[in-house]
Amino acid sequence: MEEDRRGGDKPAALRILVIGTGAVGGFYGARLAQAGAEVSVVARSDYDAVAAQGIHVQSDSGDTWFVPRKVLRSAVEYGEEADVVLVATKVLPVVDTPRLVGGAVGRGTSILLVQNGIDIEEPVRRAFPDNEILSGLAFIAANRIGPGRILHLDYGRLTLGRYPSGPSPTAESIRSLLESAGVPCTVTQDVVTARWQKLVWNAPFNPVSVLAGGVDTRTILESEESTRLVRAVMEEVCRLAAAAGHPLPADVIEQNIQGTRVMKPYMTSMLLDFENRRPMEVEAILGNAVRIARCLGLPVPRMETLYALLRSVDAQRQSSV
Amino acid sequence: MEEDRRGGDKPAALRILVIGTGAVGGFYGARLAQAGAEVSVVARSDYDAVAAQGIHVQSDSGDTWFVPRKVLRSAVEYGEEADVVLVATKVLPVVDTPRLVGGAVGRGTSILLVQNGIDIEEPVRRAFPDNEILSGLAFIAANRIGPGRILHLDYGRLTLGRYPSGPSPTAESIRSLLESAGVPCTVTQDVVTARWQKLVWNAPFNPVSVLAGGVDTRTILESEESTRLVRAVMEEVCRLAAAAGHPLPADVIEQNIQGTRVMKPYMTSMLLDFENRRPMEVEAILGNAVRIARCLGLPVPRMETLYALLRSVDAQRQSSV
Repeated sequence: MEEDRRGGDKPAALRILVIGTGAVGGFYGARLAQAGAEVSVVARSDYDAVAAQGIHVQSDSGDTWFVPRKVLRSAVEYGEEADVVLVATKVLPVVDTPRLVGGAVGRGTSILLVQNGIDIEEPVRRAFPDNEILSGLAFIAANRIGPGRILHLDYGRLTLGRYPSGPSPTAESIRSLLESAGVPCTVTQDVVTARWQKLVWNAPFNPVSVLAGGVDTRTILESEESTRLVRAVMEEVCRLAAAAGHPLPADVIEQNIQGTRVMKPYMTSMLLDFENRRPMEVEAILGNAVRIARCLGLPVPRMETLYALLRSVDAQRQSSV
Repeated sequence: MEEDRRGGDKPAALRILVIGTGAVGGFYGARLAQAGAEVSVVARSDYDAVAAQGIHVQSDSGDTWFVPRKVLRSAVEYGEEADVVLVATKVLPVVDTPRLVGGAVGRGTSILLVQNGIDIEEPVRRAFPDNEILSGLAFIAANRIGPGRILHLDYGRLTLGRYPSGPSPTAESIRSLLESAGVPCTVTQDVVTARWQKLVWNAPFNPVSVLAGGVDTRTILESEESTRLVRAVMEEVCRLAAAAGHPLPADVIEQNIQGTRVMKPYMTSMLLDFENRRPMEVEAILGNAVRIARCLGLPVPRMETLYALLRSVDAQRQSSV
């Protein structure tokens, strides 16, 4: 009776398994739980801290303690089928996403990738051809400041949609939850275009912040030559997106430049990774785009230059760890 | 009588003032003195050591002590007119070459610039429009290992010629002297083309060695993406040289790549400067070429990318000294 009445009053809570307890997984996991979803997490290096005390999210909009329903070392321990597996790991050649999510994916599970880069969905789509793949972009300034400790600095909007395109009731459910927790969220039917649009910012600023000597966004835009480079890389991304069938709005470059000028000086995630001697998302942010350009026969000389340099820097850093 | 007899037996020794006692100035100064020229030097930071004990050049072809005729703190102290002022300083915005050579330049003085880069002669030509300007390229692996101490590792050929073109008896005299001291030397009537040809190597390897994470030539050529970048930058230099009226031989790229593959792994001068927190020759090696390209309306996107990054790296390094 009790069960029935609850079922009639409101729909069953969405069962979400978040893979990764860094800034992105911690922040959205906490907000989804706050909104009433049943959120469990897979933590790896931070397992002990998260299992002991959950995840603390410090934010100007209020600090929250997020106590996950289950804290696991891997998805196979989940023991049920998630409605949504939210992948919030970095996209690195060593991270095998299909293996990471495997144990918790059933017939009705949607796999939501909240990750950086372009063309990052294909390995998951190939591994789970019958599941809904959702692709998400986090517009957030947040850092993991310790095991199970997230500092939310600014922004937070999640843009998500069905991959490669189309409507998704699950995406709408996630939007409702996030918005009820005060997090702006946009559902798009063309998430690939949204990814290209985000790459307009990521492709220049992330690599240049590292390669130009460890500089924040303000320092980059204070230099005429660096600004010229940023703009030229953005033009390459726009041409490439259009050639790949995803034309972007005409004012996207100006919006990105002006938007960055008014932002607080920002250390890109790639620069933070570099300075902390962690691997950088070189392939997701540049390598995949360069490969698409080569397939299409479109020259992207500046992106190729940044890509070659960054691969080498990443290899040097990793070999010296 | 004594004077007359000596005058009749052989021509008066060439009076050479070498500006700079780093690897290039020290090595060629020593060899020219060995061959019988009257070589004086202007030393700046190394003045005390060079004034006290001269310059020691350590080399597989024999160690030599070079005791300059005069050791000066500046050219104005020279007190006479040199036949040749040999400038062996780095080409940096802060180095005012016309001022450096000023005091020793008379009507008959040739000014020989043994320096890196492209289009570096113009300030000197403008300052001394009636003097012969000689331009020289040192193909040498040598390092300054301490004040007045040069380690000659390999090579040593000097290519020189009248700037912007034409024959030069003074250049021939220098060739005779160097060759009598065992140093190979080539006199060219088209030294600007020779500079472009050297830039084919310098424009990719110097910047990439720094920007790719501090790597030697072997590491660069072990990476497929980096080798592709090196080759593409070389192509930009060749196109630019041709557009500037100095077409290069068709096989120059392959020769440079293959020649570098068989070299001992080599740390470029720019990388040594970077690692020792010295300013890098960014403008001489990249900036001037990029400006020529912009004047000609020729796209050099890879060189522009390297230039923007390197300017920023140099500025960051200098501001953190």
